[in-house]
Amino acid sequence: MNSFGRHFRVTIFGESHGYGVGIVVDGCPPGIPLEEKDFEADLSRRKSGSKGTTPRKEPDLPQILSGVYNNHTTGAPLTILFANTNTRSRDYEALKHIPRPGHADFTASKKYGGFHDPRGGGHFSGRLTLAITAAGVIAKKIIVPIQIEATLQEAGGNLNISEAIDQAIEAKDSIGGVVQCRATGVPTSLGEPFFDSVESLTSHMMFSIPAIKGIEFGSGFQAASMKGSMNNDRIISITGKTATNHDGGINGGITNGNDIVFRVAVKPTPSISSPQETINIKTNQMERLIIDGRHDACIALRIPVVVEAGFAIVLADLLHLQK
Amino acid sequence: MNSFGRHFRVTIFGESHGYGVGIVVDGCPPGIPLEEKDFEADLSRRKSGSKGTTPRKEPDLPQILSGVYNNHTTGAPLTILFANTNTRSRDYEALKHIPRPGHADFTASKKYGGFHDPRGGGHFSGRLTLAITAAGVIAKKIIVPIQIEATLQEAGGNLNISEAIDQAIEAKDSIGGVVQCRATGVPTSLGEPFFDSVESLTSHMMFSIPAIKGIEFGSGFQAASMKGSMNNDRIISITGKTATNHDGGINGGITNGNDIVFRVAVKPTPSISSPQETINIKTNQMERLIIDGRHDACIALRIPVVVEAGFAIVLADLLHLQK
Amino acid sequence: MNSFGRHFRVTIFGESHGYGVGIVVDGCPPGIPLEEKDFEADLSRRKSGSKGTTPRKEPDLPQILSGVYNNHTTGAPLTILFANTNTRSRDYEALKHIPRPGHADFTASKKYGGFHDPRGGGHFSGRLTLAITAAGVIAKKIIVPIQIEATLQEAGGNLNISEAIDQAIEAKDSIGGVVQCRATGVPTSLGEPFFDSVESLTSHMMFSIPAIKGIEFGSGFQAASMKGSMNNDRIISITGKTATNHDGGINGGITNGNDIVFRVAVKPTPSISSPQETINIKTNQMERLIIDGRHDACIALRIPVVVEAGFAIVLADLLHLQK
Amino acid sequence: MNSFGRHFRVTIFGESHGYGVGIVVDGCPPGIPLEEKDFEADLSRRKSGSKGTTPRKEPDLPQILSGVYNNHTTGAPLTILFANTNTRSRDYEALKHIPRPGHADFTASKKYGGFHDPRGGGHFSGRLTLAITAAGVIAKKIIVPIQIEATLQEAGGNLNISEAIDQAIEAKDSIGGVVQCRATGVPTSLGEPFFDSVESLTSHMMFSIPAIKGIEFGSGFQAASMKGSMNNDRIISITGKTATNHDGGINGGITNGNDIVFRVAVKPTPSISSPQETINIKTNQMERLIIDGRHDACIALRIPVVVEAGFAIVLADLLHLQK
Repeated sequence: MNSFGRHFRVTIFGESHGYGVGIVVDGCPPGIPLEEKDFEADLSRRKSGSKGTTPRKEPDLPQILSGVYNNHTTGAPLTILFANTNTRSRDYEALKHIPRPGHADFTASKKYGGFHDPRGGGHFSGRLTLAITAAGVIAKKIIVPIQIEATLQEAGGNLNISEAIDQAIEAKDSIGGVVQCRATGVPTSLGEPFFDSVESLTSHMMFSIPAIKGIEFGSGFQAASMKGSMNNDRIISITGKTATNHDGGINGGITNGNDIVFRVAVKPTPSISSPQETINIKTNQMERLIIDGRHDACIALRIPVVVEAGFAIVLADLLHLQK
Repeated sequence: MNSFGRHFRVTIFGESHGYGVGIVVDGCPPGIPLEEKDFEADLSRRKSGSKGTTPRKEPDLPQILSGVYNNHTTGAPLTILFANTNTRSRDYEALKHIPRPGHADFTASKKYGGFHDPRGGGHFSGRLTLAITAAGVIAKKIIVPIQIEATLQEAGGNLNISEAIDQAIEAKDSIGGVVQCRATGVPTSLGEPFFDSVESLTSHMMFSIPAIKGIEFGSGFQAASMKGSMNNDRIISITGKTATNHDGGINGGITNGNDIVFRVAVKPTPSISSPQETINIKTNQMERLIIDGRHDACIALRIPVVVEAGFAIVLADLLHLQK
Repeated sequence: MNSFGRHFRVTIFGESHGYGVGIVVDGCPPGIPLEEKDFEADLSRRKSGSKGTTPRKEPDLPQILSGVYNNHTTGAPLTILFANTNTRSRDYEALKHIPRPGHADFTASKKYGGFHDPRGGGHFSGRLTLAITAAGVIAKKIIVPIQIEATLQEAGGNLNISEAIDQAIEAKDSIGGVVQCRATGVPTSLGEPFFDSVESLTSHMMFSIPAIKGIEFGSGFQAASMKGSMNNDRIISITGKTATNHDGGINGGITNGNDIVFRVAVKPTPSISSPQETINIKTNQMERLIIDGRHDACIALRIPVVVEAGFAIVLADLLHLQK
Repeated sequence: MNSFGRHFRVTIFGESHGYGVGIVVDGCPPGIPLEEKDFEADLSRRKSGSKGTTPRKEPDLPQILSGVYNNHTTGAPLTILFANTNTRSRDYEALKHIPRPGHADFTASKKYGGFHDPRGGGHFSGRLTLAITAAGVIAKKIIVPIQIEATLQEAGGNLNISEAIDQAIEAKDSIGGVVQCRATGVPTSLGEPFFDSVESLTSHMMFSIPAIKGIEFGSGFQAASMKGSMNNDRIISITGKTATNHDGGINGGITNGNDIVFRVAVKPTPSISSPQETINIKTNQMERLIIDGRHDACIALRIPVVVEAGFAIVLADLLHLQK
């Protein structure tokens, strides 16, 4: 459900157009310096406003409701809240029966019997990644000296990302992308057989991020077409260092001391400016749907910091287990 | 750790060359007909012995230790045990310091301080998928009318799988493969936001299966290079039926009533007949390693039924949550 | 840690003198009518101000931050926040080294290395039961037609509770009490062997409530001195109705259809007006401690509604499992 | 369900008259010496055969199925199995509709729709405490230098326990008892607010043991009639040592470094030799029930070692969390 982690455990809540979104972070060690301004750098990386992202601008100011005293974590649960401010009112009730293709409108409506908050995607909105990003800021402090860096490697199948975005905007369309994440300074022995492999926990988290539809570790899908003699990583040091890193730093689900490397596939935002067809689930008639408003031409631009945050949460939990 | 699932919960145990491998299945509803012979069909699909698989043959006879009375499940935990019979003795202690590339030898040794059972991979052996397969037989009975079918689509990058295996055997090498899994008859509304999406739970399970290094749902990595207008699945019926299925039957982490489709990447077995180099972690010297014995040239041949089983376990758990 | 429940899962946060206290309620079914005013009746039962309770008065206004739309639950996590308003500033840092006997001051200091929030007990304050009470209001709506009623049966060993309180106030002392809780309309079959018996889950929750030091079901400790022939409850109807109810409505950890009855022991509030001795953990000197401020002479007066709330949460979770 | 613990996690299975009973112990650290003979001492304390216990004698030989290699734990899950040998066949199907008062017959029948194994109580049998005792042997090795000792303090309300048992046998009746458990050498800081207090986890475990109907920590129910000035434990040392121990070594749910002390109430075995009345749930007729066979006049005699085991499991889990 809305919690993740065994020891460093986050619980997410909120809606896109409700009071706000937030997260409770349990299992955070005491004594970690923490202030509102510590969130700025990562939150700004997730922010919209630049080319290819929605012009909806939110101040995204985090408010620490609990778990911090004298600017240090106390060991009690931390709660970070982001109030919503820039929400446009419109007739969401009228749209409730006209599910947007590729969004969670239809599934949410079915699952919750029509009681879900439909405004801006409600609890399914990408805005909830704001809360993940905030929890990631805390997790990153815990996992030092591990460093995580995620980058957008291609968008719409194009390595020239700027060009790809220009084309998508011009076509009133959206594009997906591939984000690669690398962690350095990872100790050996993280991960637990049989069901809590590093890959299991990481993918569990990644597929919680809206729009992610694939993940691969190390050589991943390419490994499927390789021979064992090529794919095997030769161990060249008693620290576990390998000559290559086709296994992405993980053997038997456990970190081997090399960099962890994985890539996630981000699908194109389903919200596009061109008209689309869908069914009205009340009238059983096809409708021509125009999603006006503010869209991300390439949501993948805003995903890297969320991927980093999600992975930092996984590592903070695994480090706790390992101690 | 070694448990998976919230309601339909499996706990796995055992080693490749120890007493045996087994699984406890908790949360199984009472009244389901179950006998030892029900396991035969799926277990034989996982069996070795055919071209491209190891000649180690085990009778793989399941023994039901608990949870069944008068050939029906009782509602109490089911335990299925497979005794090991065909294990070859050899000097594993001598090999303990010479980790095989691509295997869990190094990570297990580090994590467990040298106390792990090294014989045939111990608890990290692919033999534990026998227990998953057995639990899957039970799960498949629970999820009716949902049907799951997984097939090997390509091996070593070759769609002609028989040819690919011949080449691998001749080269004394191993090859990976891609397994596609499809579930039909899936109801809407399975899956839980935010962290227990169908993709999250499924990938969590899949990455527990040794050798799996990638997963994608629907158009997956291909979606990353598609435009939204192409990737969006047009909804054409109030039951949620879509014209295409690029989202693999899942929106917002919740099933939309279409088939669930995903693909996993299986890496080539690290055990190959050709000599390899590795480090002796005791002497800090490079060693020339020859892994004699019995190998799978293409372990992916035996994976489809395990993927089915793992996915059936996930669905049995999700159906329980949904009720 | 700070979460309880498998399906109907609450996550608590906050401090006595920080921003506020709150709770996230996950797994609440959609479509349940809910407004801020629904909390009034139970919150007022927990309120202080009457004889024997602290004169610290808080408005205790709940704010719904998420999970409600159009005055109905949506199925997404509900967050209820109570801002603190009536907090007195004082020199808590000076008192940080002088642990009050019977409180969590010493253990919190040890566990969190001195980083805990010491003001008014911080995260260990009885004020967090406000959040439990709020979650209980929601749970009570879910478990209908089950009705729960808890009452204070004795205080300071005296059945005349008003008299007992007068005496305690006069003596500048505090007294404990025994609260009995009864649930009517309970269906059969709630509870799960082996480890999730109704008694296990209920006691787990009850001992989370500060000051509770004992629990017994049915005839409880009295049963230990009874004979089987007296203690056995004769079954007199095929619905499971029994002639007596020494087992408190539970056999083998599972509800048998009779009323569930349990009693909890509440210890006297450790905060008393008389001077006490304790150690200064910094100077290693004994100190004479006077806890001025506002105390409850009998905290047990305010506990019944908290016990009801906690038990309603347990039942909401069990009903979910049972479906 | 049938698992307990977050890190040191046990999963129990089996039936009284089926193949056997067993337990999987996950999260056990590697390198702990363990052999079958290590179980002897505790298992013999639980054994029947002496005055006041059932004459059914089982050899109770533990078989280690997994997780041990070269007589040391490996870090992989340990499985301990006890095969049943001394089971008497009788017409359990005929008795399936005649629930014994005070037993789980009625509730099991309702919950599992009649598919439960009724033989000797099936999965609800006290025989499953054999598995708990075995897991406790392992846990006790982990928690060193903590020592746990549980003793039967009174039986049938009589401090002269031998006399009480003689009287019960003569009366063809059964009696309950009170077991006190004390742990010495306990470090500070075990236990987690808000919901995983030491009392919460301990009581959760204790109420899983069949026949236990009450628990109190420190002065427990007596505290309810005490004044704060009497009940408060004066702290006399910077190590947390207190002059008295009314709080049973726990404040705010966290260990304070003093001995942990708790007492559990064991109800009299419902199986008695005298005739009883019950309802036939098939015919809706009252029946005169004579439970022949082998009974414990005082099951509480066999409970202390089970209480120790259960508490050792709790402490092993808490120590893991604390690290």
